[in-house]
Amino acid sequence: MLKIALGQIEVIPGQPDRNTHNMLDMIAEARRAKAHIIVFPEMAIPGYLLGDTWEQTAFLQDCEAFGQEIIAASTDICVLFGNVAIDWKKRGDDGRVRKYNAFFAAQNGKLLGDDNFIYPFRIKTLLPNYREFDDTRHFYSMRKLALELNKPLTELLKPVNVTIAGQKIKLGCILCEDGWGDDYHLQPPAILHNNGPVDLFINISSSPYTFNKNNKRNRVFSREASELNTPLIYVNNVGLQNNGKTIYTFDGASTVYSGSGEIIAYCPTFRAEIQYLTLNLIDKGTSLPMLSAPSDDTIADIYQAIHYGAEKFLVSIGMNKVVVGISGGIDSAVAAALYTDILGPENVLLVNMPSIYNSATTKGLAAKLAKNLGCLYTVIPIQEAVDHTINQLKTSPITNLTTGAETNLTVSGFVTENIQARDRSARILAGAAAAFGGGFTCNANKSEMTVGYSTLYGDQAGFLAALSDLWKHQVYALAEYFNTKVFGRTAIPQETIDIVPSAELSFAQAVDEGKGDPLIYPYHDYLFRAFAERWNRATPEDILTWYSKGILEQEIGCQRGLVKRIFPTHQDFIADLERWWKLYSGMAIAKRIQAPPVLAISRRAYGFDHREAQNRLYFTTRYNKLKAELLNK
Amino acid sequence: MLKIALGQIEVIPGQPDRNTHNMLDMIAEARRAKAHIIVFPEMAIPGYLLGDTWEQTAFLQDCEAFGQEIIAASTDICVLFGNVAIDWKKRGDDGRVRKYNAFFAAQNGKLLGDDNFIYPFRIKTLLPNYREFDDTRHFYSMRKLALELNKPLTELLKPVNVTIAGQKIKLGCILCEDGWGDDYHLQPPAILHNNGPVDLFINISSSPYTFNKNNKRNRVFSREASELNTPLIYVNNVGLQNNGKTIYTFDGASTVYSGSGEIIAYCPTFRAEIQYLTLNLIDKGTSLPMLSAPSDDTIADIYQAIHYGAEKFLVSIGMNKVVVGISGGIDSAVAAALYTDILGPENVLLVNMPSIYNSATTKGLAAKLAKNLGCLYTVIPIQEAVDHTINQLKTSPITNLTTGAETNLTVSGFVTENIQARDRSARILAGAAAAFGGGFTCNANKSEMTVGYSTLYGDQAGFLAALSDLWKHQVYALAEYFNTKVFGRTAIPQETIDIVPSAELSFAQAVDEGKGDPLIYPYHDYLFRAFAERWNRATPEDILTWYSKGILEQEIGCQRGLVKRIFPTHQDFIADLERWWKLYSGMAIAKRIQAPPVLAISRRAYGFDHREAQNRLYFTTRYNKLKAELLNK
Repeated sequence: MLKIALGQIEVIPGQPDRNTHNMLDMIAEARRAKAHIIVFPEMAIPGYLLGDTWEQTAFLQDCEAFGQEIIAASTDICVLFGNVAIDWKKRGDDGRVRKYNAFFAAQNGKLLGDDNFIYPFRIKTLLPNYREFDDTRHFYSMRKLALELNKPLTELLKPVNVTIAGQKIKLGCILCEDGWGDDYHLQPPAILHNNGPVDLFINISSSPYTFNKNNKRNRVFSREASELNTPLIYVNNVGLQNNGKTIYTFDGASTVYSGSGEIIAYCPTFRAEIQYLTLNLIDKGTSLPMLSAPSDDTIADIYQAIHYGAEKFLVSIGMNKVVVGISGGIDSAVAAALYTDILGPENVLLVNMPSIYNSATTKGLAAKLAKNLGCLYTVIPIQEAVDHTINQLKTSPITNLTTGAETNLTVSGFVTENIQARDRSARILAGAAAAFGGGFTCNANKSEMTVGYSTLYGDQAGFLAALSDLWKHQVYALAEYFNTKVFGRTAIPQETIDIVPSAELSFAQAVDEGKGDPLIYPYHDYLFRAFAERWNRATPEDILTWYSKGILEQEIGCQRGLVKRIFPTHQDFIADLERWWKLYSGMAIAKRIQAPPVLAISRRAYGFDHREAQNRLYFTTRYNKLKAELLNK
Repeated sequence: MLKIALGQIEVIPGQPDRNTHNMLDMIAEARRAKAHIIVFPEMAIPGYLLGDTWEQTAFLQDCEAFGQEIIAASTDICVLFGNVAIDWKKRGDDGRVRKYNAFFAAQNGKLLGDDNFIYPFRIKTLLPNYREFDDTRHFYSMRKLALELNKPLTELLKPVNVTIAGQKIKLGCILCEDGWGDDYHLQPPAILHNNGPVDLFINISSSPYTFNKNNKRNRVFSREASELNTPLIYVNNVGLQNNGKTIYTFDGASTVYSGSGEIIAYCPTFRAEIQYLTLNLIDKGTSLPMLSAPSDDTIADIYQAIHYGAEKFLVSIGMNKVVVGISGGIDSAVAAALYTDILGPENVLLVNMPSIYNSATTKGLAAKLAKNLGCLYTVIPIQEAVDHTINQLKTSPITNLTTGAETNLTVSGFVTENIQARDRSARILAGAAAAFGGGFTCNANKSEMTVGYSTLYGDQAGFLAALSDLWKHQVYALAEYFNTKVFGRTAIPQETIDIVPSAELSFAQAVDEGKGDPLIYPYHDYLFRAFAERWNRATPEDILTWYSKGILEQEIGCQRGLVKRIFPTHQDFIADLERWWKLYSGMAIAKRIQAPPVLAISRRAYGFDHREAQNRLYFTTRYNKLKAELLNK
């Protein structure tokens, strides 16, 4: 019998000292509990998402030294952990020192594994380089090493031999992506098993949370364990890491699969914890009770991830007070509820900033929300400043210093709308936040961010865009969740949920007359999701093809019958499609470049997970052809 | 004799229709000139920096179809070009359709090369994934293919056989990085030659401009040609491409090297051009006159790149008017000069926005600059609005809706400074730009951007940060260049060059009293360069090590004797180092995440070429030890 400790630690990126300290504590605890093995996540010492910190030699040396401390602590216990491994004598493809994303197995103060490999550690074979991942930028893969050594991978991937409690065990040591090899031309677990057989697979991971990803992981890893008839331990970290533009939560959810693929241990999500499991390698864990995996695809999961992410982000930047501009509308109400939930009402300053265009309805809803949440509240009107700005722009004489001619600027209605938005954020909220000793929030949702339906330095500004990976319909669902589950009362006023969404930047957007955003969310949410989130991105060519075949609604997942109701003619449909595609691939990119960091929830968050260039509008040849056909019908 | 056309086109990223059109025109021209071969750059059809556009199946099909048009046009001429190649039956590691960064050789309407390879095109072997490059995210490399096919690369990399003008020729077809293999474990040109010998190497590239890179390229490629005793043709595109956060110019500078490594043809920089060369393969081009490469490392080169980059960027986003906020200081003066030079004075609106802290000196200098440049000019004071903002913040009652208590915010001097900066940019300049029908510029330099010495939504805002890859001393050099070479007169007032740099946001920053920025540019420019631009990034540990060894100045390249003069004690030195490191690795990252796109000049521009995570401040163990030693001395 093997007593295994799952060391689901919180990894703090870029803080090897603190991570090592936490690991040493957990090793001591596991030793006291008489565990034979403790397993820590991938990159447990340095953290995983560090940008180009990997190019700092001093940092690498530091991580290596902390790794030595962990190795030294492996007395009376076998310690498995992830760290960067450095081969100071070799170069990476970039000419810098060679770095590996590595799996270390230590026992009795020494590293294991060099009896059948060139290094006393194992190397990640499959380096993900899609989505937010950037592994190949920094780390040399086992595949490249195989080419360099001129040896087949099938010969190089070997289990680590270890003797624990008198048992000789072959560990199949893999790192994260190595277990997700479906799309690759090779599957490391199968190769390892072939060179074993492996008694126990250990997958150490640093796997960012994605809505509904654990369900998939359970399917993939369960199949892997049962196909190879070998138990598999998956250990993932918790915590928050980021790559600048995008903030990722790590949910842990470390799991053990028996040799028949059943879940026999499951760590909690979003909580650092050591968990023990006593495994019989003879029966491959199949005698242990089967557990079912918790849900992964409900609004409760989104709430948990957003709450955890925003809370950890505040801690990581040392911020404990926030200012939220509230309009009476849904997005700012959910943001206010979120931060109140995290920081307590006494640390949240809600600011309503009416102009002449704001209705009594929404002003009242803002006050009601503030009252319901019990926050700090103030009203700072913007009309005087907006009028002053417009007046200054219109009346300041512009002199042509070549000709001497004088002119004046004219200020259109559209320009006036953006002046209001900037006045609220860059003038009031930024100033109020600095005076309050905190930051102000960006309340934009993903639908707005997709097409840049927001003002740069205005409502798009803030220290964090916590809701910007949620489509508008998800924001509504979250509002309901706050009322029914978090607060257990109607904290977010029902009218805020019921009124038409509107920016109220002109009389054309009067909520009381039912006038609001140009976005028809029940359709556009799904159209935009097809642009941004489909694995093979949908373009106008795809959309128009589906439309012309009558399968658009089922392809994008919106309500049946909707498209016909919204767009009476092909021309209407095409005009709408082109309008939003133009924004999505144009001005919205310019805005996203300067957007706050986005808290990732979906499998495609804006920022580093959605790389984009500010290029010109383009329609494919086939799109243009199909469009001409439809319009000529 | 072989008549070769170098097709140094401008590649417009994401516009395969226009690129194909331009290529067809150039093919027709080359055919008329009786050229045997025309060579186009890497990714000539789609463009190279496209973000995740590569995930749009419709776009890929479009590029493939345009490639067919080029192939069809290869009658009476051999056409060599770069395009994306798609194997619709295979997958990449991300599960999407397999894409290659490919080299196509077409003749008589057909593709060549499938007589000794599995595809009728050649594949990039070395995919760069450092700096701004992201090749491995999208393209499958020849190295991975070799592993998949289970064949050695030495067997797979073969020349393309072609018969031109009765001569049987073996072409060594390589793509960009394949010619820069020094840091890799294999060199494609040598392998190809071994499987040849190759008669002529063709390196098609899409190689972004970097200050002083062409000098290095000439050394590397010249050595390559002479070592293999084979002429080498390098064709690069011109134009502008970007990956969102960073804007890259492409300078062309296509070059031909003889078999003895001499330069025998050189296309102009930053200009689309077809150039012809008649090459004798028997003497390997050695009978042609040797040319010397133009300079690559002067302020004139920086001027050329910035002018080209800003001009092309304006064209690409359809902007032809700009607003520049001018303070009387050096950065905004250089920005004003740059845009006036590009757009003409009638399209540039200069705005001076004084507060009570701005001196008569700088207000006068702003007016003088505007006069000298002959631009549109206006003065819009900010004091009234700033006072109004401060008053609103201080007097709006804040109610605690739990307790009913009322408080007020207090506005500190530091908060007031930032209010001014945001008032100028987000209130005045953004409004003026919208009313003027253009954008407003970000005038920040690299020194400021390194440590976030700027205000978010204030002086850090704008549509483009054209000077943000220049250290302060380079901005001064550019100012001198504008006066002496571009305008031929003192357009930028000499006093603007001579006064102390200052933000003038408080009376503590009074220029007339010689008070200004906390940055001591002759030292900090070089310290920051060591943080940001060294291939192996310098950290406080490195800096302090060099300092303690007395070699800091030579390591970072600043003036000798400076450090001792600035910092009387170790404590002073360390306090300064920690102050800026904390900002560089902290608040400055938060600001850069929301910064405008940066026009790249150096080998490390902020943005996509400098990936960073918003993590916590960290000092290595060895740093802390060394610091303690120094302070205890």
